[in-house]
Amino acid sequence: MAYNLLKGKRGIITGALDENSIAWKVAEKCHEEGATFVLTNAPIAMRMGEINKLAEKTGSKIIPADATSVEELTTLFTQSQEVLGGKIDFVLHSIGMSVNIRKKIPYTELNYDYFNKGIDVSAMSFHKMLAVAKKLDAINEWGSVVALTYMAAQRTYPFYTDMADIKAMLESIARSFGYHYAVDKKVRINTVSQSPTKTTAGTGIKGFGDFFDYADAISPLGNASAEDCANYCVTLFSDLTRMVTMQNLLHDGGYSSTGVSNAILEKLGISESE
Amino acid sequence: MAYNLLKGKRGIITGALDENSIAWKVAEKCHEEGATFVLTNAPIAMRMGEINKLAEKTGSKIIPADATSVEELTTLFTQSQEVLGGKIDFVLHSIGMSVNIRKKIPYTELNYDYFNKGIDVSAMSFHKMLAVAKKLDAINEWGSVVALTYMAAQRTYPFYTDMADIKAMLESIARSFGYHYAVDKKVRINTVSQSPTKTTAGTGIKGFGDFFDYADAISPLGNASAEDCANYCVTLFSDLTRMVTMQNLLHDGGYSSTGVSNAILEKLGISESE
Amino acid sequence: MAYNLLKGKRGIITGALDENSIAWKVAEKCHEEGATFVLTNAPIAMRMGEINKLAEKTGSKIIPADATSVEELTTLFTQSQEVLGGKIDFVLHSIGMSVNIRKKIPYTELNYDYFNKGIDVSAMSFHKMLAVAKKLDAINEWGSVVALTYMAAQRTYPFYTDMADIKAMLESIARSFGYHYAVDKKVRINTVSQSPTKTTAGTGIKGFGDFFDYADAISPLGNASAEDCANYCVTLFSDLTRMVTMQNLLHDGGYSSTGVSNAILEKLGISESE
Amino acid sequence: MAYNLLKGKRGIITGALDENSIAWKVAEKCHEEGATFVLTNAPIAMRMGEINKLAEKTGSKIIPADATSVEELTTLFTQSQEVLGGKIDFVLHSIGMSVNIRKKIPYTELNYDYFNKGIDVSAMSFHKMLAVAKKLDAINEWGSVVALTYMAAQRTYPFYTDMADIKAMLESIARSFGYHYAVDKKVRINTVSQSPTKTTAGTGIKGFGDFFDYADAISPLGNASAEDCANYCVTLFSDLTRMVTMQNLLHDGGYSSTGVSNAILEKLGISESE
Repeated sequence: MAYNLLKGKRGIITGALDENSIAWKVAEKCHEEGATFVLTNAPIAMRMGEINKLAEKTGSKIIPADATSVEELTTLFTQSQEVLGGKIDFVLHSIGMSVNIRKKIPYTELNYDYFNKGIDVSAMSFHKMLAVAKKLDAINEWGSVVALTYMAAQRTYPFYTDMADIKAMLESIARSFGYHYAVDKKVRINTVSQSPTKTTAGTGIKGFGDFFDYADAISPLGNASAEDCANYCVTLFSDLTRMVTMQNLLHDGGYSSTGVSNAILEKLGISESE
Repeated sequence: MAYNLLKGKRGIITGALDENSIAWKVAEKCHEEGATFVLTNAPIAMRMGEINKLAEKTGSKIIPADATSVEELTTLFTQSQEVLGGKIDFVLHSIGMSVNIRKKIPYTELNYDYFNKGIDVSAMSFHKMLAVAKKLDAINEWGSVVALTYMAAQRTYPFYTDMADIKAMLESIARSFGYHYAVDKKVRINTVSQSPTKTTAGTGIKGFGDFFDYADAISPLGNASAEDCANYCVTLFSDLTRMVTMQNLLHDGGYSSTGVSNAILEKLGISESE
Repeated sequence: MAYNLLKGKRGIITGALDENSIAWKVAEKCHEEGATFVLTNAPIAMRMGEINKLAEKTGSKIIPADATSVEELTTLFTQSQEVLGGKIDFVLHSIGMSVNIRKKIPYTELNYDYFNKGIDVSAMSFHKMLAVAKKLDAINEWGSVVALTYMAAQRTYPFYTDMADIKAMLESIARSFGYHYAVDKKVRINTVSQSPTKTTAGTGIKGFGDFFDYADAISPLGNASAEDCANYCVTLFSDLTRMVTMQNLLHDGGYSSTGVSNAILEKLGISESE
Repeated sequence: MAYNLLKGKRGIITGALDENSIAWKVAEKCHEEGATFVLTNAPIAMRMGEINKLAEKTGSKIIPADATSVEELTTLFTQSQEVLGGKIDFVLHSIGMSVNIRKKIPYTELNYDYFNKGIDVSAMSFHKMLAVAKKLDAINEWGSVVALTYMAAQRTYPFYTDMADIKAMLESIARSFGYHYAVDKKVRINTVSQSPTKTTAGTGIKGFGDFFDYADAISPLGNASAEDCANYCVTLFSDLTRMVTMQNLLHDGGYSSTGVSNAILEKLGISESE
């Protein structure tokens, strides 16, 4: 069911790797809701066969860009405006990568070059996108920017290693830049802190997949899916949430506000309480 | 502009006192978005001339109910389902009253009967509504309940006196009941923590009106208005936010994440920074 | 090992029921650290045989007082100053009781008289103590007040039912009153949010005892014991923490900042991560 | 007045630049409380005339080390143990530097090389210190590590620019590493979020000095001084706070829990409330 919530809006969506990606679902929903947008990803991360399907399905153009490069981001925002015929109304930042996780390096023995790489790709890229957009004056007033994050920024999950610290920085950038962009151009910036999601990226984190069921058992509504997240992002891109900015929004079926659930107590062999 | 976001949905809206009320705006927006609903208020608080206008405008029935009475709330939920032709999909709790504030009693000298009265009307009423709804199984799966609150529950505002403590309890009830209602019936419960708003109730708090401009100068987007809040509530009542529950959602133009603004520093005669 | 951290300080300690009580340990530690104090409890809750031992051991006088009675609290603060020979330097509020928990009433079916009773005993008593103390000017400048709380005020634990909402109010009262008492008299007020503790009271909560091991397995340092808590309270009563006020201080071995531990993942049969 | 709270304990204290530094006060207090310690700073930041005075006064050895160099940190921890005659009990991380701030570069136009430099010096240095200490097994069980931070990590202060994001990462590192170090060696790691302080470093931030009075007027107890902070750190290094870990501890005279004060409302020409 669609509502035309994003009718006439123009967007840039990063991170649609394959159909398991949250960004992929966001693109599909934004299309259903009447938006037009550009898809982008790092040239190195693109699986052209996959993303071409999404582009075709949603009538979108693909503009590859390395999000760590101010130059390529400048091209991205410039071309996107040309392609879409005007300033941008919404942006999804869904970019995260940790070489330390990939290489299964323990948190207490992090490789600092990899840590820096992770920061550059996953957090600083967000500042760069915003800085480029602001410099070009590429985002319309009341435009909406969302970056995806995870609650490891607030509480420790051993398997998430340096991405926890990087996401904490990402969320801070949303607040810091959110202040300035709101004052100057009424652009709002939020992060969505999503349940563990069975994306291709998530599956790559050792223990993250296993953890999925645990989080699901804690969450009173269960884990939020990629599709749920896409629906939520649509509301944040819409004109109905104009005064929400600089927030970290938990989208997690109630997980973050649940200390323990009866389902978990039962799993642990503890007699059900109440 | 309307989207039919709430088409076919049935609701109960409390607290629409006059056209300055947030609840009034919520009712208008829900009507625009295709919902049908019942309006309710305490018999003693009703200004029939006013609320009749809203009922007429939105094609709603008015069912008076004292929210401190389990019996009257039972009638409210029972009759609402009859009038609307089915189970309820959304509820707005917008009920708050402090006799201590009205009588300008300093926080350190609270009258405890008044404090209890405030708790009963403003917080326990929320538990009672939810308990009645759950007992009657009156809310549809994925139904959405929103209660309005204020950031005084997290940070002290001297003029807000005992309502701060009461709102803290209200927000906790949202989490506590939210857990159970989600597990049992997939009903979600959130609070919206709204900017200071120039409602008739707000204006009654000494200093609250004066404070309005200060908060506005801190908030990068300015204070969120009652109408903004209504738009936001519509998204929370919609099917697009199904996995958001047990959250306290700041709807404040960025106020809560802003330590200080350049606008405030200038007001205080401090040279602009950065 | 003792440091004379509280040498010359006078206190009032509530809630020492038996030697498992946190308040009991606080009294012992305060005595070791050179403080003199009055012990108090509700006449109805007193186990005179027990508390007399503590009074003897610490050279303390017992002044029974119903903490819901402004009159009895006035007597308590007046007599305490007489007995101790001067104004009060520190107060421990360790008072909590829920009839709904005792009677195993489910949260969604709370008895509201019991809920009110719980609020009166467990939260409003804190406001009353502070109001009486301030009215009598019974606390020295830089005096320190601590109330014990539990993280259920932030996250839901099904077995904690209405005490969650009551503790949320208690923590808010600490902030609200803390503002005024700091501005007027430099008195500071904090809450300590303690690990689940095997007290006689805690053991009475169905599921709370069972939950103890789960929390212990999450906490990187394990659960904090009653004695640990007493040590921490001593630092908060001392002159070394003068600028800490209006805070909710987590004293929990790291529990609150841990999303999941490897110990829990193992218990759940999930292969160890990292 | 001293209590011998740190008698027999061995520490490493970074960041004592001159007598206005918080680290300088921490060193003085730790000395008074019976600790022995090594002072360290980056060779480039050392003002030898100044720090020699502190070393002499406290009977400490100075071991220069660049905190961005794993090699130099290894030397620091190795030599410190030799000099002090055993494993380390406490560490103070008080290292922060932003070239973007120094050069008055607006936040929305950050230089990314400078940003990386700030991260390396101010946040990654903390991970490196902890990683080196853990690898060398240089910290005793129940040892305590404190890093200084500022509330800009939670709320935006325009003049703090990229240090806000860096401090957010620092606080996350404290949580992430705190988990592992607690599980493996019972070492605890916390951050202290201190009031704006008139240090030489703080004074260098444009607007930060001006902001000092505003924060002071909000804080019910006024801003916490460097000396207050030193007292607080002593409690965190002591054995009395053993179960506090992975926390961000607000040390700010109540600032963080105060939405607005009457003092501020008066400054703004708003009639006093209540």
